[in-house]
Amino acid sequence: MAKYNNNFQNLKKNYLFIEISKRISEFITKNPDVSLIRMGIGDVTLPLVPAVVEAGKKAFDEMGVKSTFRGYEDSGRGYDFLREAVGGYYKDFGVELLTDEIFISDGAKSDSGNIGDIFASDCDVIVTDPAYPVYVDSSIMGGRKVTFADFNTPIAPKDSIIYLCSPNNPTGEAYSHNELKAWVDVALANNAVIVYDAAYEAFISETDKARSIFQIKGARKCAVEICSLSKTAGFTGTRCGYTIVPNELMLTSSDGSEIPLIQLWSRRQGSKFNGVSYPVQRAAEAVFSKEGQQQIKESIGYYRKNAKIIMDTFIELGISFTGGVNSPYVWFDCPNNMDSWDFFDFMLTKANVVGTPGVGFGENGANKFRLTAFNTYENTVEAMARLKKVLLNKS
Amino acid sequence: MAKYNNNFQNLKKNYLFIEISKRISEFITKNPDVSLIRMGIGDVTLPLVPAVVEAGKKAFDEMGVKSTFRGYEDSGRGYDFLREAVGGYYKDFGVELLTDEIFISDGAKSDSGNIGDIFASDCDVIVTDPAYPVYVDSSIMGGRKVTFADFNTPIAPKDSIIYLCSPNNPTGEAYSHNELKAWVDVALANNAVIVYDAAYEAFISETDKARSIFQIKGARKCAVEICSLSKTAGFTGTRCGYTIVPNELMLTSSDGSEIPLIQLWSRRQGSKFNGVSYPVQRAAEAVFSKEGQQQIKESIGYYRKNAKIIMDTFIELGISFTGGVNSPYVWFDCPNNMDSWDFFDFMLTKANVVGTPGVGFGENGANKFRLTAFNTYENTVEAMARLKKVLLNKS
Repeated sequence: MAKYNNNFQNLKKNYLFIEISKRISEFITKNPDVSLIRMGIGDVTLPLVPAVVEAGKKAFDEMGVKSTFRGYEDSGRGYDFLREAVGGYYKDFGVELLTDEIFISDGAKSDSGNIGDIFASDCDVIVTDPAYPVYVDSSIMGGRKVTFADFNTPIAPKDSIIYLCSPNNPTGEAYSHNELKAWVDVALANNAVIVYDAAYEAFISETDKARSIFQIKGARKCAVEICSLSKTAGFTGTRCGYTIVPNELMLTSSDGSEIPLIQLWSRRQGSKFNGVSYPVQRAAEAVFSKEGQQQIKESIGYYRKNAKIIMDTFIELGISFTGGVNSPYVWFDCPNNMDSWDFFDFMLTKANVVGTPGVGFGENGANKFRLTAFNTYENTVEAMARLKKVLLNKS
Repeated sequence: MAKYNNNFQNLKKNYLFIEISKRISEFITKNPDVSLIRMGIGDVTLPLVPAVVEAGKKAFDEMGVKSTFRGYEDSGRGYDFLREAVGGYYKDFGVELLTDEIFISDGAKSDSGNIGDIFASDCDVIVTDPAYPVYVDSSIMGGRKVTFADFNTPIAPKDSIIYLCSPNNPTGEAYSHNELKAWVDVALANNAVIVYDAAYEAFISETDKARSIFQIKGARKCAVEICSLSKTAGFTGTRCGYTIVPNELMLTSSDGSEIPLIQLWSRRQGSKFNGVSYPVQRAAEAVFSKEGQQQIKESIGYYRKNAKIIMDTFIELGISFTGGVNSPYVWFDCPNNMDSWDFFDFMLTKANVVGTPGVGFGENGANKFRLTAFNTYENTVEAMARLKKVLLNKS
């Protein structure tokens, strides 16, 4: 019975998805014949594209032959073939990266949490509210004080760590270059580090939005960027992402000496990570091929079309929302002054549509609701028809 | 320039493999025609077995079809099919586990390091010397004091964390049931937790050796076990392992309240990990199939034969060693009073064979050397012939 990290006592019990499951199963038990449409969970539904599947299979074949078998990766940071492919992708929106600044990971969630290992436990943490719960929970586990901020009101206590997510989960909002520059400027002025989660970057359709924080001047001195192929290419179950750590980003020790963050992150990963599966890295490489890019654009287009259907419905209903344009998420005010759990129950029981109560993402979500575009076209159309019916009947 | 975790300043610079590479490349530059035999790195060389390759490819095919596509795993702890396969494997040596006590990971290294997240930073850490450097480095990053112990001299400061590795890397020694029971008893008596690394378990050939710490009475109250398919089935580049966390194992908070370790680990993984790639989990499942087990036994048999050649050579030379019988590693006293770097240079320049200087694994390795059985049969025979020649010439 060794002692445990007391910071775990400060975690809020997160019953969101458990409570959602419970309410759904109670409803289904009472109404077994109902056809439920699930637009709650942020998971993709389209299969991996053919280029990715073929690359993964080919790599498994290589692993079965002595002359092409691969054991440990030398660096654990990812094979050059994949890091160079990622670098090439960034070039397309004007960001030049060195291959050594790109770290291949098993997904954005791991790196978002694990990066806490390299910071002092007394660094304050800023998280925009509402937010993906991982930033808050992993910061609390590391003993850090979390302060919430609004999406577009940059604040940075001295030496703090700032988690930004754009396009945002859950609100679907994306930073314009100017908005993001305001965060970068405040971070630089206060020796803060921005951990920038760009997991939904591939959904950006408006040209004034930032595709990467490294499009912003000064960001190389204050930001790391975490990205993932989960939503870009349907890798939620295949697991691959990447983290960009610019060489210029320095951290200070308590005695004032400086060290590049990349050196600390390399040491952290060298001691606690052994790289991503070779077949998965080859599958990920195929995402960045010409063929792969064409194929994933079709999948993203499919989800975008769903998002449009959802947005059009809310416009028709006169309900204000964010997201949808640069994101697979639509985030809206619960109608008729319902709180987010009331509206969850209303949607479940009246329209037989499942969404996510906004309060699960923070206090600012208490009267908000999230729907995702990750269902089929047919189900999305049907869900919106049901929603209109019940809301127009009610009001 | 946020502040960094000062504990990183306490890490020793680990130049072992950098220094090895440097000396090798200097030697090759001067002697470009030499045929070097590498028996240093602990990486496998045989390809994945056919059952594993087929399972991985089949899973990628499933991922390419909408009806069989898999997104996020619900739990992130691993699919039941794999957890049940692992549970079945443990049954073969008399250990009954609940499926929920089995956590699928991307390898032993990640979990060995990440498990530190759930412990208080003032828990003392015990590591046997010599040891795999990850236990020491990840403990230091977490702010913990590391004390070294001998392999068979159980000590456990109150509330400590004890890293044990059996069969051991680098010494190749494996605990008998009785020897391991001595560690379990001392851990139980002092409220310590044992983190038991069983990554080389598949190499055990002697029946009195423990295959799992859970074969030992009382271990369910004081131990977690970390294992990997890296050496068992050549997964060093494919990445899959598993960690066993028994329900009975409790930790205390600073106020004395108790909580099951499994609850803390679940929360840690829930916030910082999103599960292992589906195709990799299917590939791992195939390791435990009847066909897979037959095939991997052939690979292990191949490495064992190499180990036997190494052991026979040392017996013939009258050099004392450990390992080889239950491990792919042979660990021996450097001949002629050389220290481990002197002997490295001697082997490199005179026999053109690369091994690992023991000092890289701790002070107790200062006059030791590690050779691995992970090369081809032909190279192993040739390397031992060269070794005999240079040592018999010298003495």
